Amino acid sequence: MKKFDMIVKNGVVVTASDTYRADIGIKDGKIVELSSDLNEDAVEVVDAKGKYVFPGGIDPHTHMDMPFGGTFSSDNFKTGTIAAACGGTTTIVDFAVQPKGKSLKETAKIWREKSDGKAVIDYGIHMNITDMTEDVMNEIPEMIKEGYSSVKLFMTYEGMRVDDGTLLRTLMKVNESGGLTCVHAENYYAIDYNTKKLLSEGKTEPIYHALSRPDLVEGEACGRAIKLARMVNAPLFVVHNTCEASISEIARARAEGYPIMGETCPQYLLLSEDNYREPDFNGAKYVMSPPLRDKKNWPVVWKALKDNTVQLVATDHCPFFMKQKELGKESFTKIPNGAPGVELRMSLIYTYGVVDGKFDLNRFVQVTSTNAAKVYGMYPQKGTIAVGSDADLVVFDPNIETTVTQSMLHENVDYTPYEGFKLKGYPVTTISKGNVVAKDGKFVGKEGAGKFIVRKAPMMI
Amino acid sequence: MKKFDMIVKNGVVVTASDTYRADIGIKDGKIVELSSDLNEDAVEVVDAKGKYVFPGGIDPHTHMDMPFGGTFSSDNFKTGTIAAACGGTTTIVDFAVQPKGKSLKETAKIWREKSDGKAVIDYGIHMNITDMTEDVMNEIPEMIKEGYSSVKLFMTYEGMRVDDGTLLRTLMKVNESGGLTCVHAENYYAIDYNTKKLLSEGKTEPIYHALSRPDLVEGEACGRAIKLARMVNAPLFVVHNTCEASISEIARARAEGYPIMGETCPQYLLLSEDNYREPDFNGAKYVMSPPLRDKKNWPVVWKALKDNTVQLVATDHCPFFMKQKELGKESFTKIPNGAPGVELRMSLIYTYGVVDGKFDLNRFVQVTSTNAAKVYGMYPQKGTIAVGSDADLVVFDPNIETTVTQSMLHENVDYTPYEGFKLKGYPVTTISKGNVVAKDGKFVGKEGAGKFIVRKAPMMI
Amino acid sequence: MKKFDMIVKNGVVVTASDTYRADIGIKDGKIVELSSDLNEDAVEVVDAKGKYVFPGGIDPHTHMDMPFGGTFSSDNFKTGTIAAACGGTTTIVDFAVQPKGKSLKETAKIWREKSDGKAVIDYGIHMNITDMTEDVMNEIPEMIKEGYSSVKLFMTYEGMRVDDGTLLRTLMKVNESGGLTCVHAENYYAIDYNTKKLLSEGKTEPIYHALSRPDLVEGEACGRAIKLARMVNAPLFVVHNTCEASISEIARARAEGYPIMGETCPQYLLLSEDNYREPDFNGAKYVMSPPLRDKKNWPVVWKALKDNTVQLVATDHCPFFMKQKELGKESFTKIPNGAPGVELRMSLIYTYGVVDGKFDLNRFVQVTSTNAAKVYGMYPQKGTIAVGSDADLVVFDPNIETTVTQSMLHENVDYTPYEGFKLKGYPVTTISKGNVVAKDGKFVGKEGAGKFIVRKAPMMI
Amino acid sequence: MKKFDMIVKNGVVVTASDTYRADIGIKDGKIVELSSDLNEDAVEVVDAKGKYVFPGGIDPHTHMDMPFGGTFSSDNFKTGTIAAACGGTTTIVDFAVQPKGKSLKETAKIWREKSDGKAVIDYGIHMNITDMTEDVMNEIPEMIKEGYSSVKLFMTYEGMRVDDGTLLRTLMKVNESGGLTCVHAENYYAIDYNTKKLLSEGKTEPIYHALSRPDLVEGEACGRAIKLARMVNAPLFVVHNTCEASISEIARARAEGYPIMGETCPQYLLLSEDNYREPDFNGAKYVMSPPLRDKKNWPVVWKALKDNTVQLVATDHCPFFMKQKELGKESFTKIPNGAPGVELRMSLIYTYGVVDGKFDLNRFVQVTSTNAAKVYGMYPQKGTIAVGSDADLVVFDPNIETTVTQSMLHENVDYTPYEGFKLKGYPVTTISKGNVVAKDGKFVGKEGAGKFIVRKAPMMI
Repeated sequence: MKKFDMIVKNGVVVTASDTYRADIGIKDGKIVELSSDLNEDAVEVVDAKGKYVFPGGIDPHTHMDMPFGGTFSSDNFKTGTIAAACGGTTTIVDFAVQPKGKSLKETAKIWREKSDGKAVIDYGIHMNITDMTEDVMNEIPEMIKEGYSSVKLFMTYEGMRVDDGTLLRTLMKVNESGGLTCVHAENYYAIDYNTKKLLSEGKTEPIYHALSRPDLVEGEACGRAIKLARMVNAPLFVVHNTCEASISEIARARAEGYPIMGETCPQYLLLSEDNYREPDFNGAKYVMSPPLRDKKNWPVVWKALKDNTVQLVATDHCPFFMKQKELGKESFTKIPNGAPGVELRMSLIYTYGVVDGKFDLNRFVQVTSTNAAKVYGMYPQKGTIAVGSDADLVVFDPNIETTVTQSMLHENVDYTPYEGFKLKGYPVTTISKGNVVAKDGKFVGKEGAGKFIVRKAPMMI
Repeated sequence: MKKFDMIVKNGVVVTASDTYRADIGIKDGKIVELSSDLNEDAVEVVDAKGKYVFPGGIDPHTHMDMPFGGTFSSDNFKTGTIAAACGGTTTIVDFAVQPKGKSLKETAKIWREKSDGKAVIDYGIHMNITDMTEDVMNEIPEMIKEGYSSVKLFMTYEGMRVDDGTLLRTLMKVNESGGLTCVHAENYYAIDYNTKKLLSEGKTEPIYHALSRPDLVEGEACGRAIKLARMVNAPLFVVHNTCEASISEIARARAEGYPIMGETCPQYLLLSEDNYREPDFNGAKYVMSPPLRDKKNWPVVWKALKDNTVQLVATDHCPFFMKQKELGKESFTKIPNGAPGVELRMSLIYTYGVVDGKFDLNRFVQVTSTNAAKVYGMYPQKGTIAVGSDADLVVFDPNIETTVTQSMLHENVDYTPYEGFKLKGYPVTTISKGNVVAKDGKFVGKEGAGKFIVRKAPMMI
Repeated sequence: MKKFDMIVKNGVVVTASDTYRADIGIKDGKIVELSSDLNEDAVEVVDAKGKYVFPGGIDPHTHMDMPFGGTFSSDNFKTGTIAAACGGTTTIVDFAVQPKGKSLKETAKIWREKSDGKAVIDYGIHMNITDMTEDVMNEIPEMIKEGYSSVKLFMTYEGMRVDDGTLLRTLMKVNESGGLTCVHAENYYAIDYNTKKLLSEGKTEPIYHALSRPDLVEGEACGRAIKLARMVNAPLFVVHNTCEASISEIARARAEGYPIMGETCPQYLLLSEDNYREPDFNGAKYVMSPPLRDKKNWPVVWKALKDNTVQLVATDHCPFFMKQKELGKESFTKIPNGAPGVELRMSLIYTYGVVDGKFDLNRFVQVTSTNAAKVYGMYPQKGTIAVGSDADLVVFDPNIETTVTQSMLHENVDYTPYEGFKLKGYPVTTISKGNVVAKDGKFVGKEGAGKFIVRKAPMMI
Repeated sequence: MKKFDMIVKNGVVVTASDTYRADIGIKDGKIVELSSDLNEDAVEVVDAKGKYVFPGGIDPHTHMDMPFGGTFSSDNFKTGTIAAACGGTTTIVDFAVQPKGKSLKETAKIWREKSDGKAVIDYGIHMNITDMTEDVMNEIPEMIKEGYSSVKLFMTYEGMRVDDGTLLRTLMKVNESGGLTCVHAENYYAIDYNTKKLLSEGKTEPIYHALSRPDLVEGEACGRAIKLARMVNAPLFVVHNTCEASISEIARARAEGYPIMGETCPQYLLLSEDNYREPDFNGAKYVMSPPLRDKKNWPVVWKALKDNTVQLVATDHCPFFMKQKELGKESFTKIPNGAPGVELRMSLIYTYGVVDGKFDLNRFVQVTSTNAAKVYGMYPQKGTIAVGSDADLVVFDPNIETTVTQSMLHENVDYTPYEGFKLKGYPVTTISKGNVVAKDGKFVGKEGAGKFIVRKAPMMI
């Protein structure tokens, strides 16, 4: 028997803190050796000469096959994870949205049926509780023990949102049970007020989606969630921060020493409110919540990403075909919320983060992989290149230059918000647990090879 | 006919910015002359030699004859204003609490029946809306025009609180109508959660009142109200700030240039959470909302008062006899909320503010009189000593030293929270519209001499 | 004998806190009465109908007849105070610059010879110590007692600057003696380094004056002076703040409760670094230290003026004819530092402060008059309209609209930096100690009518 | 020939970001392999079962054999590096203090003579310029190229300090040459003033050393140095930060995005001003500059260490025998400045940082090793456990519990400031470039085995 199943040779290994030349020896899906020169026989050798070898990307915020307003997001766990893999991502964490009246156990079952045997890379599942009852509250400890170690709550969305009391009780319960509470932070009432006002004035186009939920709507809810977390000494993770209004709240809490963490997404770093004004209903492409913001927020969000006010970049990947988006032709309130993004995350952040000099390679690894693994209880199985870790790797060629066009992507949707964006640096080989799953822009893996990750307690970073 | 109805002679006149020796000539209830030496004949001469003459105190936060949990606050407009006058206060602004289902017009009528013909000094009335309907919303412009130019909303209290949507719409409506919105800022849900938890643990004593509504409960709501106000570009006044948690929110907003203002009360500057632990149910004396805080907040609140983060000192005067307090013998949730304070405000703030060196005489006048007049649309009729202003004056002897005991006070209640407090400086003569209403601790005025003040638009200070 | 020497009738009196209709009765140079209606006989009646009556302006930073680089500033105490009076200013405080080797007594004598019998309005004198010896240090208490109650030190200027040790000792000595220390805050070494570098590169035009002393040069020195003041618990006044770099230091110290105060000047609110690029050596008009700044500082400085981070507006009036400026034709280092400003201060701040909505009338009075009187120990003799105060008044017509041109001014210099500026509101009558000294743009006073003001201890505001 | 010279087996490898079980293969002084299981033959096997394997400690602030006030620090490069090695440190960076009139080349030569052939572990050398001339300035680029890539300047100390102009020019020159400027930040003039004052009052005991240089003395100089660095866009490293006064300056600059970095030392985290009051001249043990501070600074400094306001922990190791300290028996100004610390750094920071829960293992590695390597241009040769890096390792037993006593240490001095401190966790084996140099508290290495490190450009972290 050969010592290694695979050797990744000649690459420059990059971790959250180190950058060095080493060969990587893989056996049984794990990294077993890092060496200056591996010459042993191996079943397969991947040559990474002139390239970086990063820990496989982790996108901890996706919505595959998710029901929304009578339709479903257009990527399922197969198509969505193929896209992820082709883009250098080897792990996703998807949100299992609790249907009205269902238990968490049932919710998990529904989501496992969507994912098990379909995903091509490993995946975790967050519990997105939308119908909190005493029974559901009591299920939390068990679900966390079974690896669903994070719970998300919506502070907005009619029929799914929780009030502050529920948020408070959940923060306490989840924390006691060793899990992490996440919030989608927007003020329901303000959105409701603004929306009714806009609609009453006949303002129905996509741009009004943004105007109905201005940055303070997010900043207020973010600040409120933080204070509720502080009241019960619980950690909190705020998803998809878009703007100074929310980031300043997180920064303030962290400066005072509280365990408050958060993410942003490429769209909030690279796209803006202006996109909603694209003609012919093209603004609908960008309808998501929270919405894209005024460009002046960009440097604030990049800085937060650099200085660890936010710890990671997720995508909130939730694609809909333009046909689906047209449900909202008559009213922005009916446009399915969400946009694709899972495939371009690594290259976008590399190009506009590292190449543009906003941060270095090690910070790139932190925000695209290591920190998500740490925050969401998958570390060190995921998120690093170290002996004993899963052999989830991406060979990344810093010299590839390309321009984004939808046809190069594997996402199951007919547009990309990043059409025309220049990229410098792109994944060439993605390895999941020691198997090449994507190579030169082609999926070469296997449906169902991805497994559910039993996640543990969060680390505070 | 004599040139003056009254001359106040030989005093040192103190205004919000100036301190100087002058005689004051009064005619028809107005100040008509300030002079180095008035020798004309006058109906009455008040000698103020060796004393300060301040603008009469304004207490813009009182609750006379207010229903609460099946009982009524024990001072009515007669007894309460007599106490105010004896303490150097010549104007109060009381909160008309809207009964369920009543219109604002009806609410105003109820309150005018309580006050007209009874109050011994002038008074304004805030509209405290607790049952907001479309009709009530539509009454706002008219009420403001009629002089009820401020609207208060509760963010907590079951059955009276408003949600964020209502707060938002009210902020906008009141602002458009030229009025000012005030909030009682506490997070309802957190209080509700804490209260149920404490009661379920059998914790029913007065101290648990404080523990059920910790400072972050107030800080959160204050921050939220501010952000909602910013969303609609409306000014906001936050009543009874008690602690760093809320004051830091106001400070932040003001530093960024927003028209956010607020008050504090003597009890938050001089009493603390420790008082709730007084034995034999004596802690109930201090049950009010928000509750007294940890002493460490004192310097923060004093500093806010000095540096204009909060603009004024009110009392939230709302007394209940100990007999009434005993409604909550079995549970802190049943203790009528409130305590007396209207009579000692001037002397307490003078003693512990001016004499203790926290600020100067002019700042004393600002926080006890001028700023309340400006914020609540009564300036320059009230709040200053200037030609043309109402002759509301208090002759204040800085040399009187005394120790507070309940029996020296005129409040209709059987205790004072300040029992045993040392005072240095006390009012000796209070003049309302040119008439002496209190002298040497005795009421010498006339029931019904006080009139309703038609208040105008707020000034932003 | 008539009761009043003068009555100012029908005006709207404005003080630091109040605005009201009143007539003003004046006797023996003092305000003796404020009344709703003065009908007594008076020697002179000034009609102020439709106009504001402000306390006469106080400009506490002027340089009359000051030696600089072999020449003298072109206004002497006569011409300079005539210009001040015509512009609505009734008090200046000028800096007596200590000549090398002279005692403070001698310095005062020199300055009193320049001013006594010449000035047309009252004036105070600061001691500007440039040659600190043990003897000079020991003179400080006596000088303060004699009314020279403020000492200024230069942190830059070869041959005049003091090192940190001297600054420290002076702060302590002046404070102990009941005076106030002022600093001109710029880092000498950085300027020296930059200047040599620029000159070595052949960069000699006026713009390089600004580039040799960038904002951090000022911010550093300001921060340093503040910390030295804190080390010895002394108050400090920082003159001519121009930019965010210094203002942020003052703001930080004040927020922490330290008695740090400061001023700005109209040129830093209205002119910018761009002016140095005016062709044909016109940039030299604006050569002063600290220099004009990038426009982005304007809102920061205006905000500081509104929120009391800086307490007042002075001018640093120090004019030189263009002929004199040409001493620096070959090198910006030889251009006499300074520009005129004393005459337009009141109207500029009214127009761009009050009319533009940056602050209200009362704040205008504070920053142009009251605060200077308080900070520099002249209050309440100067700086307010109150019984007992000097009858220094300016009748100001808010309806006059004009455009600045040099020929309308009385400053003894051949240009104004504000040429072409629109003004709305201008003084029509200036009254000094009960005598009209300027009327409708004409000087009607008397040489030598102004007297030296024996200034007392500073007030901390 | 065996594949490995040494294998470190069974340990838990800890780096700046990762913690994992791995064996380490070493060849020719370098790490060549990290593996789950190394069974190859090796010359030597170090068993690390149940222990951590950290990158060897780096102490970038030591003073071996340094002249001070007529004596020399008592550790030379041999004894000092033996102590370092026994304490788990494998690299020091020492300060070559320029003697008056000597060139940098000569200074380097003097220091190389002290160190070459003597040090038992590798060492870098900073250039501590005390006599800046044009010639010296011109030597800087060459010295940096030769590996002396950091320059330190004193802002205080008579005869050695530089003025702001020299600091400014040096910052620029060093930055242009690819090096890093460090400062000892204290305000000379304030110290001078305070010292003279104290001595004149007969205050000569050790405690007055602290009182002569209070925290603002440091904070002012730190803030000044930062602003000078910003003026010329140069990075800056502030050595030995002790208190909130300086740390707040660094924090502010970093929050605004400037490349300002700094260190603290164990003594500022664990000892306080109170130590100066130990009887019988024992206070002299702690005489160093800056001095120990009020305890209230401890949490501030620990927080700065955790949140990366300061990047690393050095020791400023500079021991003197009590006999030497007695030079200052008559006056604190004569006490040699400095104290030992190089040997206990790793264990103190582990015990009071990691064990006490202030930060995690990875942050421990960052602050004791990785960050010093990065800041001072030695990374990745030093500072990490990665393929290709020097085999500088410390096997650290987290279960050892001991109490500090001077006799257990190897420092050439007769006391330790940490006498009686409890330790949990201690180095058991120290490996320098693949050779065991210390084992179980005994030095087993070789004089002169340490080599000069040619350091490169700093990394900004």
